Amino acid sequence: MSLKLTILGCGSATPTIDRNPTAQVLQVLERFFLIDCGEGTQLQMRRNKIRPRHFDHIFISHLHGDHYLGLFGLLSSLHLYSRNKPMYVFCPPKLKEIIDLQLTASGTRLSYELHFHELVENGEQLIIETNEAAVYSFPMNHRIPCWGFKFVEKPRPKSMKGEKIREYNISFSKIDEIRNGNNFVNENGKIIPNDELTFPAKETRTYAFCSDTIYDESIIPYVKGVDLLYHEATFAHELLDKATNRYHTTALQAATFALKAEAKTLIIGHYSSRYGEVSALLNEARTVFENTIAASDNLVIEIS
Amino acid sequence: MSLKLTILGCGSATPTIDRNPTAQVLQVLERFFLIDCGEGTQLQMRRNKIRPRHFDHIFISHLHGDHYLGLFGLLSSLHLYSRNKPMYVFCPPKLKEIIDLQLTASGTRLSYELHFHELVENGEQLIIETNEAAVYSFPMNHRIPCWGFKFVEKPRPKSMKGEKIREYNISFSKIDEIRNGNNFVNENGKIIPNDELTFPAKETRTYAFCSDTIYDESIIPYVKGVDLLYHEATFAHELLDKATNRYHTTALQAATFALKAEAKTLIIGHYSSRYGEVSALLNEARTVFENTIAASDNLVIEIS
Repeated sequence: MSLKLTILGCGSATPTIDRNPTAQVLQVLERFFLIDCGEGTQLQMRRNKIRPRHFDHIFISHLHGDHYLGLFGLLSSLHLYSRNKPMYVFCPPKLKEIIDLQLTASGTRLSYELHFHELVENGEQLIIETNEAAVYSFPMNHRIPCWGFKFVEKPRPKSMKGEKIREYNISFSKIDEIRNGNNFVNENGKIIPNDELTFPAKETRTYAFCSDTIYDESIIPYVKGVDLLYHEATFAHELLDKATNRYHTTALQAATFALKAEAKTLIIGHYSSRYGEVSALLNEARTVFENTIAASDNLVIEIS
Repeated sequence: MSLKLTILGCGSATPTIDRNPTAQVLQVLERFFLIDCGEGTQLQMRRNKIRPRHFDHIFISHLHGDHYLGLFGLLSSLHLYSRNKPMYVFCPPKLKEIIDLQLTASGTRLSYELHFHELVENGEQLIIETNEAAVYSFPMNHRIPCWGFKFVEKPRPKSMKGEKIREYNISFSKIDEIRNGNNFVNENGKIIPNDELTFPAKETRTYAFCSDTIYDESIIPYVKGVDLLYHEATFAHELLDKATNRYHTTALQAATFALKAEAKTLIIGHYSSRYGEVSALLNEARTVFENTIAASDNLVIEIS
């Protein structure tokens, strides 16, 4: 079991040569989720050999340009590639209006169904469930309405112990329910506990995405104990005033947030373009939360 | 006197690793004009060391995403850089609505004035005149309303012959009008012809941008005799049917257009992503119009 996170862009509002604006791909088994879609996302997908047609679900955190300006181009390309399966976009209310206006202006009638699901500001919400994962939205605290997303891997069927199948003469038709956790009752009515028949269930993994936001501990319950936490760290702590004024977070604050949220691993990003390289931000975060990773474009992180 | 054209993007609708969507910068003396603004234009400006703050005029040919999706990000960045001089955007009618909606959604009130000038479909129009150049729009023939642009360098004042100033005792106050082409009348009423007093005027240069369009000879009068003609060449001529169906042009057609327009030099671009390299398109064009250049990202062409 593993989650694979690819950072397509880890910059903030003004792009730099080395950093595209925010976009990430989370892969859970064969399922690909696109999280934010800043300008250049299509090109970054190409560079990372990720195919746009693999996506059915796109999550947009908020309507600052550096988090969604790559979306219309991506949707247009899917049309040019003659996509015919539906696409689901989970996003702030006004995005549908923006995309619809752009479609009208370009005279495009998409080759596929495009569904918008408006995010709501009322606490944690289960917004989509696939065979591979459940996805929740929760409110961030930014200058405009903004959401975080949590991806919770679904438990997978347990593996059977082959010798037990023979020992108890278990018929093929019973295998699925045993793998899903049920006990087995043999022909004499004897109950064989599930644990005796199967290997322990593999742990499921969780990923939470928190960008953009001011430091806000009221968000912690939504991401408590996640395996991997992405939290924005736009500035170093010496620029706390600037961070606060702009509803952003410092690296030190991101680490404090991760510590209090009891995350296993923290990944920071959304760096201000003033930082050519980010070791100062990383070191600052590690003074509080040792297990911190600095995002960089094209970085791949696997949690297995 | 020279025009300097920088190709920021020469791809078409679906971007490739090597080709950004359409954007070009034309420099006339100290004046910078941005022509189309596909996704990634800001980054391409950085790569080419062109500063966004140098621009006061942006020209958008039409509202297919590959020609304008970089605009909102660019305008947002200028706001973050605290720009305070006005920006003028010459564009199809609906673009103002799109940008306004995105500004509202992002809660942004720009730090500078943003003026939209709607292009009109009625033949050639003088749309802006600066000290350096006059810019004209003219209609292309595409699937949606689309415009080309012609940039005509302004004549510069002629240079005086120093010895004639002394010979005719010309006062300082008369110099400007002589440099602008007037004759000189001395104190005895004798007319000294301008040609005797000045060096010949330097030639002015013209650039015309034609993208996107089906092959259409009715456009030729608008670009007759230009020094440099950019014409889209999305496909090779073997795909003429596809080009025609999609209101695009083949390389052979672009060359025929340049020949009939009596352009000095042709530059082709807007290549379909099916072409990894474009020597076939270039060779095809050169069978008809020898002086053809193939656009590539970051190519700089000077006409002097």
